[in-house]
Amino acid sequence: MTIEFEPIGFVSTDVAKVPRHWTVSEAEGTIVISDQYTEGLKDIKAGQSIVVLFYFHKSPRFTPDLLVQTHRSNKRMGVFSICSPIRPNPIGMSVVAVLGVEGHTIKIKDLDMLDGTPILDIKPVMEK
Amino acid sequence: MTIEFEPIGFVSTDVAKVPRHWTVSEAEGTIVISDQYTEGLKDIKAGQSIVVLFYFHKSPRFTPDLLVQTHRSNKRMGVFSICSPIRPNPIGMSVVAVLGVEGHTIKIKDLDMLDGTPILDIKPVMEK
Repeated sequence: MTIEFEPIGFVSTDVAKVPRHWTVSEAEGTIVISDQYTEGLKDIKAGQSIVVLFYFHKSPRFTPDLLVQTHRSNKRMGVFSICSPIRPNPIGMSVVAVLGVEGHTIKIKDLDMLDGTPILDIKPVMEK
Repeated sequence: MTIEFEPIGFVSTDVAKVPRHWTVSEAEGTIVISDQYTEGLKDIKAGQSIVVLFYFHKSPRFTPDLLVQTHRSNKRMGVFSICSPIRPNPIGMSVVAVLGVEGHTIKIKDLDMLDGTPILDIKPVMEK
Protein backbone atom coordinates (compact mmCIF):
# COMPACT_ATOMS: atom_id res chain seq x y z
CA MET A 1 0.00 0.00 0.00
CA THR A 2 1.60 3.24 -1.13
CA ILE A 3 0.24 6.58 0.10
CA GLU A 4 0.99 9.62 -2.03
CA PHE A 5 1.09 13.26 -1.00
CA GLU A 6 1.95 16.51 -2.79
CA PRO A 7 3.55 19.35 -0.80
CA ILE A 8 1.15 22.19 0.06
CA GLY A 9 4.12 24.56 0.16
CA PHE A 10 7.78 25.01 1.04
CA VAL A 11 9.95 26.59 3.74
CA SER A 12 12.05 29.60 2.86
CA THR A 13 14.78 30.75 5.22
CA ASP A 14 18.19 32.38 4.97
CA VAL A 15 19.29 31.08 8.38
CA ALA A 16 22.65 29.45 7.68
CA LYS A 17 22.63 26.99 10.58
CA VAL A 18 19.10 25.93 11.39
CA PRO A 19 18.78 24.73 15.04
CA ARG A 20 18.33 20.97 15.46
CA HIS A 21 14.84 21.17 16.99
CA TRP A 22 11.97 23.63 17.40
CA THR A 23 12.15 23.21 21.19
CA VAL A 24 15.54 24.94 21.15
CA SER A 25 15.05 27.27 18.18
CA GLU A 26 14.18 30.92 17.82
CA ALA A 27 15.20 31.04 14.15
CA GLU A 28 12.88 32.77 11.73
CA GLY A 29 11.66 31.85 8.30
CA THR A 30 8.68 31.79 6.02
CA ILE A 31 6.29 29.08 4.95
CA VAL A 32 5.19 29.75 1.38
CA ILE A 33 1.94 27.92 0.70
CA SER A 34 0.76 27.22 -2.84
CA ASP A 35 -1.58 29.96 -4.08
CA GLN A 36 -4.42 27.48 -4.43
CA TYR A 37 -4.55 26.95 -0.64
CA THR A 38 -4.43 30.62 0.47
CA GLU A 39 -8.06 30.64 1.64
CA GLY A 40 -7.32 27.80 4.05
CA LEU A 41 -4.95 30.09 5.99
CA LYS A 42 -7.61 32.66 6.87
CA ASP A 43 -7.79 31.82 10.60
CA ILE A 44 -4.06 31.63 11.27
CA LYS A 45 -3.02 34.74 13.20
CA ALA A 46 0.14 36.32 14.58
CA GLY A 47 0.81 35.25 18.16
CA GLN A 48 -0.54 31.74 17.91
CA SER A 49 1.36 28.49 17.52
CA ILE A 50 0.75 25.98 14.73
CA VAL A 51 1.72 22.38 14.13
CA VAL A 52 3.64 21.94 10.88
CA LEU A 53 4.05 18.52 9.27
CA PHE A 54 6.82 18.33 6.71
CA TYR A 55 8.98 16.01 4.65
CA PHE A 56 12.61 15.44 5.70
CA HIS A 57 13.72 15.86 2.09
CA LYS A 58 17.45 15.82 2.85
CA SER A 59 17.52 12.75 5.09
CA PRO A 60 19.40 9.63 4.08
CA ARG A 61 17.16 6.66 3.36
CA PHE A 62 16.07 4.65 6.39
CA THR A 63 17.66 1.22 6.83
CA PRO A 64 16.84 -1.43 9.49
CA ASP A 65 20.07 -0.78 11.45
CA LEU A 66 18.55 2.63 12.29
CA LEU A 67 15.58 1.18 14.22
CA VAL A 68 17.70 1.95 17.28
CA GLN A 69 19.79 5.12 17.14
CA THR A 70 22.15 6.92 19.48
CA HIS A 71 20.26 9.82 20.97
CA ARG A 72 21.92 13.14 21.89
CA SER A 73 21.85 11.90 25.48
CA ASN A 74 24.13 9.05 24.33
CA LYS A 75 21.42 6.48 25.05
CA ARG A 76 20.54 3.94 22.36
CA MET A 77 16.87 4.60 21.65
CA GLY A 78 14.07 3.22 19.46
CA VAL A 79 13.38 5.43 16.46
CA PHE A 80 9.73 5.92 17.48
CA SER A 81 10.84 7.50 20.79
CA ILE A 82 13.15 10.11 19.27
CA CYS A 83 12.84 12.96 16.77
CA SER A 84 15.55 11.74 14.38
CA PRO A 85 15.01 12.83 10.77
CA ILE A 86 16.00 9.33 9.64
CA ARG A 87 12.85 7.25 10.19
CA PRO A 88 10.76 4.73 8.25
CA ASN A 89 8.50 7.52 6.93
CA PRO A 90 10.59 10.72 7.04
CA ILE A 91 7.83 13.02 8.31
CA GLY A 92 8.77 15.84 10.66
CA MET A 93 6.52 17.68 13.08
CA SER A 94 7.29 21.09 14.51
CA VAL A 95 5.35 23.52 16.65
CA VAL A 96 6.24 27.03 15.54
CA ALA A 97 5.13 30.52 16.52
CA VAL A 98 3.32 32.61 13.91
CA LEU A 99 4.76 36.12 13.46
CA GLY A 100 2.31 37.07 10.73
CA VAL A 101 0.33 35.91 7.72
CA GLU A 102 0.38 37.78 4.45
CA GLY A 103 -1.44 36.32 1.46
CA HIS A 104 -0.08 32.82 1.03
CA THR A 105 2.97 33.24 3.27
CA ILE A 106 3.34 32.64 7.00
CA LYS A 107 6.24 34.29 8.85
CA ILE A 108 7.33 31.96 11.63
CA LYS A 109 9.72 31.72 14.56
CA ASP A 110 11.17 28.60 16.30
CA LEU A 111 12.08 27.16 12.91
CA ASP A 112 13.94 23.84 12.65
CA MET A 113 13.31 23.13 8.99
CA LEU A 114 15.86 23.61 6.24
CA ASP A 115 15.34 26.01 3.37
CA GLY A 116 13.30 24.24 0.70
CA THR A 117 11.60 21.77 3.05
CA PRO A 118 8.31 20.53 1.55
CA ILE A 119 5.31 21.17 3.83
CA LEU A 120 2.65 18.45 4.09
CA ASP A 121 0.08 19.95 6.47
CA ILE A 122 -0.62 22.69 9.01
CA LYS A 123 -2.81 21.98 12.04
CA PRO A 124 -3.96 23.81 15.15
CA VAL A 125 -2.26 23.02 18.46
CA MET A 126 -4.69 20.95 20.56
CA GLU A 127 -4.60 19.93 24.19
CA LYS A 128 -6.55 17.35 26.11
CA MET B 1 6.66 16.53 -6.62
CA THR B 2 5.06 13.40 -5.25
CA ILE B 3 6.07 12.07 -1.83
CA GLU B 4 5.43 8.40 -1.18
CA PHE B 5 5.00 6.61 2.14
CA GLU B 6 4.20 3.05 3.16
CA PRO B 7 2.23 2.45 6.38
CA ILE B 8 4.36 1.23 9.29
CA GLY B 9 1.27 -0.50 10.72
CA PHE B 10 -2.48 -0.36 11.20
CA VAL B 11 -5.05 0.38 13.91
CA SER B 12 -7.18 -2.43 15.23
CA THR B 13 -10.24 -1.65 17.34
CA ASP B 14 -13.67 -3.14 17.93
CA VAL B 15 -15.12 0.15 19.18
CA ALA B 16 -18.28 0.60 17.12
CA LYS B 17 -18.48 4.39 17.31
CA VAL B 18 -15.01 5.89 17.53
CA PRO B 19 -15.08 9.37 19.18
CA ARG B 20 -14.49 12.30 16.81
CA HIS B 21 -11.22 13.44 18.42
CA TRP B 22 -8.57 12.19 20.82
CA THR B 23 -9.17 15.21 23.08
CA VAL B 24 -12.63 13.80 23.90
CA SER B 25 -11.90 10.07 23.62
CA GLU B 26 -11.19 7.35 26.12
CA ALA B 27 -11.77 4.56 23.57
CA GLU B 28 -9.25 1.74 23.47
CA GLY B 29 -7.60 -0.03 20.61
CA THR B 30 -4.35 -1.49 19.38
CA ILE B 31 -1.71 -0.26 16.99
CA VAL B 32 -0.22 -3.25 15.18
CA ILE B 33 3.18 -2.31 13.78
CA SER B 34 4.82 -4.32 11.01
CA ASP B 35 7.14 -6.98 12.43
CA GLN B 36 10.13 -5.39 10.74
CA TYR B 37 9.83 -2.28 12.96
CA THR B 38 9.39 -4.01 16.35
CA GLU B 39 12.84 -2.99 17.61
CA GLY B 40 11.95 0.68 17.09
CA LEU B 41 9.25 0.38 19.78
CA LYS B 42 11.65 -0.61 22.56
CA ASP B 43 11.42 2.67 24.51
CA ILE B 44 7.63 3.08 24.38
CA LYS B 45 6.23 2.26 27.83
CA ALA B 46 2.84 2.01 29.51
CA GLY B 47 1.79 5.29 31.11
CA GLN B 48 3.34 7.62 28.56
CA SER B 49 1.69 9.47 25.70
CA ILE B 50 2.76 9.22 22.08
CA VAL B 51 2.06 11.23 18.94
CA VAL B 52 0.59 9.08 16.18
CA LEU B 53 0.55 10.25 12.57
CA PHE B 54 -1.88 8.40 10.35
CA TYR B 55 -3.64 8.40 7.01
CA PHE B 56 -7.33 9.36 6.88
CA HIS B 57 -8.01 6.41 4.59
CA LYS B 58 -11.81 6.78 4.62
CA SER B 59 -11.99 10.51 3.92
CA PRO B 60 -13.57 11.82 0.74
CA ARG B 61 -11.12 13.47 -1.61
CA PHE B 62 -10.29 17.11 -0.87
CA THR B 63 -11.75 19.71 -3.24
CA PRO B 64 -11.13 23.50 -3.25
CA ASP B 65 -14.61 24.29 -1.84
CA LEU B 66 -13.37 22.63 1.38
CA LEU B 67 -10.59 25.18 2.02
CA VAL B 68 -13.10 26.74 4.40
CA GLN B 69 -15.32 24.35 6.34
CA THR B 70 -18.04 24.68 8.95
CA HIS B 71 -16.48 23.85 12.29
CA ARG B 72 -18.41 22.14 15.11
CA SER B 73 -18.70 25.59 16.67
CA ASN B 74 -20.68 26.59 13.56
CA LYS B 75 -17.95 29.03 12.52
CA ARG B 76 -16.63 28.88 8.96
CA MET B 77 -12.94 28.12 9.38
CA GLY B 78 -9.85 27.65 7.24
CA VAL B 79 -8.90 23.98 6.87
CA PHE B 80 -5.44 24.59 8.37
CA SER B 81 -7.01 25.81 11.63
CA ILE B 82 -9.25 22.80 12.20
CA CYS B 83 -8.79 19.05 12.59
CA SER B 84 -11.12 18.03 9.76
CA PRO B 85 -10.21 14.70 8.15
CA ILE B 86 -10.87 16.23 4.73
CA ARG B 87 -7.71 18.22 3.99
CA PRO B 88 -5.26 18.68 1.09
CA ASN B 89 -3.01 15.93 2.48
CA PRO B 90 -5.25 13.68 4.62
CA ILE B 91 -2.79 13.16 7.48
CA GLY B 92 -4.17 12.85 11.00
CA MET B 93 -2.33 13.45 14.25
CA SER B 94 -3.44 12.10 17.60
CA VAL B 95 -1.91 12.07 21.05
CA VAL B 96 -2.85 8.80 22.73
CA ALA B 97 -2.05 7.14 26.03
CA VAL B 98 -0.05 3.93 25.99
CA LEU B 99 -1.59 1.11 28.07
CA GLY B 100 1.11 -1.39 27.19
CA VAL B 101 3.50 -2.66 24.53
CA GLU B 102 3.76 -6.33 23.65
CA GLY B 103 6.00 -7.38 20.79
CA HIS B 104 4.89 -5.36 17.79
CA THR B 105 1.57 -4.18 19.25
CA ILE B 106 0.78 -1.08 21.33
CA LYS B 107 -2.40 -1.04 23.40
CA ILE B 108 -3.70 2.52 23.49
CA LYS B 109 -6.42 4.68 25.00
CA ASP B 110 -7.90 8.01 23.76
CA LEU B 111 -8.30 6.50 20.31
CA ASP B 112 -9.96 8.52 17.51
CA MET B 113 -8.84 6.39 14.57
CA LEU B 114 -11.05 3.93 12.73
CA ASP B 115 -10.32 0.24 12.60
CA GLY B 116 -7.89 -0.37 9.73
CA THR B 117 -6.36 3.12 9.76
CA PRO B 118 -2.84 3.07 8.25
CA ILE B 119 -0.17 4.43 10.62
CA LEU B 120 2.58 6.64 9.16
CA ASP B 121 4.74 7.45 12.17
CA ILE B 122 4.99 7.43 15.97
CA LYS B 123 6.83 10.23 17.79
CA PRO B 124 7.50 11.27 21.37
CA VAL B 125 5.45 14.11 22.85
CA MET B 126 7.70 17.17 23.06
CA GLU B 127 7.24 20.50 24.80
CA LYS B 128 9.07 23.78 24.48
